[in-house]
Amino acid sequence: MKIGGLEAGGTKMVCAVGDEMGNIMDKTVIPTGTPEDTVPQITGFFRGKGIEAMGIGCFGPVDLNRKSTTYGYITQTPKLPWVNYDMAGTVKRELGVPVGFDTDVNGAVLGEVAWGAAKGLENAIYMTVGTGIGVGVYLEKKLLHGLMHPEAGHMLLGRHPEDSYKGRCPYHDNCAEGLAAGPAVEERWGKKAVELADREEVWELEAYYLAQAVANYILAYSPEKIILGGGIMHQEKLYGMVRAKTKELLNGYIPKREILDGMEDYIVAPALGDEAGIKGALCLGAMAGKESE
Amino acid sequence: MKIGGLEAGGTKMVCAVGDEMGNIMDKTVIPTGTPEDTVPQITGFFRGKGIEAMGIGCFGPVDLNRKSTTYGYITQTPKLPWVNYDMAGTVKRELGVPVGFDTDVNGAVLGEVAWGAAKGLENAIYMTVGTGIGVGVYLEKKLLHGLMHPEAGHMLLGRHPEDSYKGRCPYHDNCAEGLAAGPAVEERWGKKAVELADREEVWELEAYYLAQAVANYILAYSPEKIILGGGIMHQEKLYGMVRAKTKELLNGYIPKREILDGMEDYIVAPALGDEAGIKGALCLGAMAGKESE
Repeated sequence: MKIGGLEAGGTKMVCAVGDEMGNIMDKTVIPTGTPEDTVPQITGFFRGKGIEAMGIGCFGPVDLNRKSTTYGYITQTPKLPWVNYDMAGTVKRELGVPVGFDTDVNGAVLGEVAWGAAKGLENAIYMTVGTGIGVGVYLEKKLLHGLMHPEAGHMLLGRHPEDSYKGRCPYHDNCAEGLAAGPAVEERWGKKAVELADREEVWELEAYYLAQAVANYILAYSPEKIILGGGIMHQEKLYGMVRAKTKELLNGYIPKREILDGMEDYIVAPALGDEAGIKGALCLGAMAGKESE
Repeated sequence: MKIGGLEAGGTKMVCAVGDEMGNIMDKTVIPTGTPEDTVPQITGFFRGKGIEAMGIGCFGPVDLNRKSTTYGYITQTPKLPWVNYDMAGTVKRELGVPVGFDTDVNGAVLGEVAWGAAKGLENAIYMTVGTGIGVGVYLEKKLLHGLMHPEAGHMLLGRHPEDSYKGRCPYHDNCAEGLAAGPAVEERWGKKAVELADREEVWELEAYYLAQAVANYILAYSPEKIILGGGIMHQEKLYGMVRAKTKELLNGYIPKREILDGMEDYIVAPALGDEAGIKGALCLGAMAGKESE
């Protein structure tokens, strides 16, 4: 089956034609402008390519409640032209195929479960640490939506006693995203993350916050695998630091081999690299296609 | 169908004979001693009563992995005689009926979903604040197990700047259970919780911690309902305080009516009162009976 995948982000729209095995045959990237500019370019890319279903992993918040009149909409977002935009519905009308729709991070965790680092597992989470922090959640073989969808990137953390940075989140004084996403790192230290690579104290503090979030995700979700991706994680030394600090915070409380003696295989990089999101979108499309059969 | 329910706690074993509608016909309470003393009393109560299935909500940690050789066991526990005890297997062998087995708090949330405050919902959590803090998690119509089972009562929190109490958890300096469960309240203030009813600062601090935990559960689980039970919540003024403080911490970030303008119906007491756990055990039993048909 030929499937279309769209990883809809705030800065770019990744479009791919692939199949239900996660193979990608054709791909393009479109900068995110207004819906009026951007969506016709997206549908134009897919039109005439013979796709039988479409999957969208979308920046949010989004409405995932199938009983809602605004199912498939982007709801509130700082990207004002996209507020209350009917993303899934528009694509479905324009392309005339079944559309699977979820958050960008739920797409990414699904991709990793289907073909990546969490292949075959029933419980996994994908945390992206980049311009924001987002967490995709797959539990007991299902993507978690609930009342809206998880917003675990805004989990409230304990502040480091010597960190006087005010935080970058307009809503929360002490949330993970506000303290540890890319813009927070940049504003706190006055330089881009890549330019701070050699500053040990930068990454010690970053690991301090990320490990708190990860420890709380372990306590809350009981995942079988934790995948950490996003631009900040390109500082690869962070993996070891986050593993060590998470283990220290949990302090042996959870008596499972994976945590006590297997952190290298438990907290990992995405096996699909930067393609987790777009491949997850293909997987959402494959599921929508199958559902509509 | 006649069903047996066992709410297995560290201090008492609640046994009930009921049906798949949650009706209880017969009930007894047995103090928790050693397995050798206690379990024969439990099986003795049920024997000859014509039950067709049995459900157990059990103190933990427990092994819920059906593929494991120790499925149905209590694993590590400070109650040493129960370490590595085959709870589900023993009951099943003794009574010769299918046994449903889960954590005590997962049992309680299931009871509330079946017949209580979360009736008909697909996503709900049950937080008990008593001698410990435990969280039962029901998401997308399934009880969450994952790698082990959630241990969200140990979620790490930010400390109140004026709280110098060392905490009561032997594993974590700053977890919810260590800072806010009954024994922590008692040790911090030097009196039993009931004797502190009029001390405003006690409950302000308690709400400060509980609301942090609840806000993080909302961000992580995206539940449709949060049920707060357990002995500490018998201080009923806490409900209003936790609702207000949780709303303040989330600060409008989650654009859902339930949180912005419906906290009274969102964070609630158990509708089954202290029977959530035992009725949940009946529900676990009904499910096991149905599964074995």
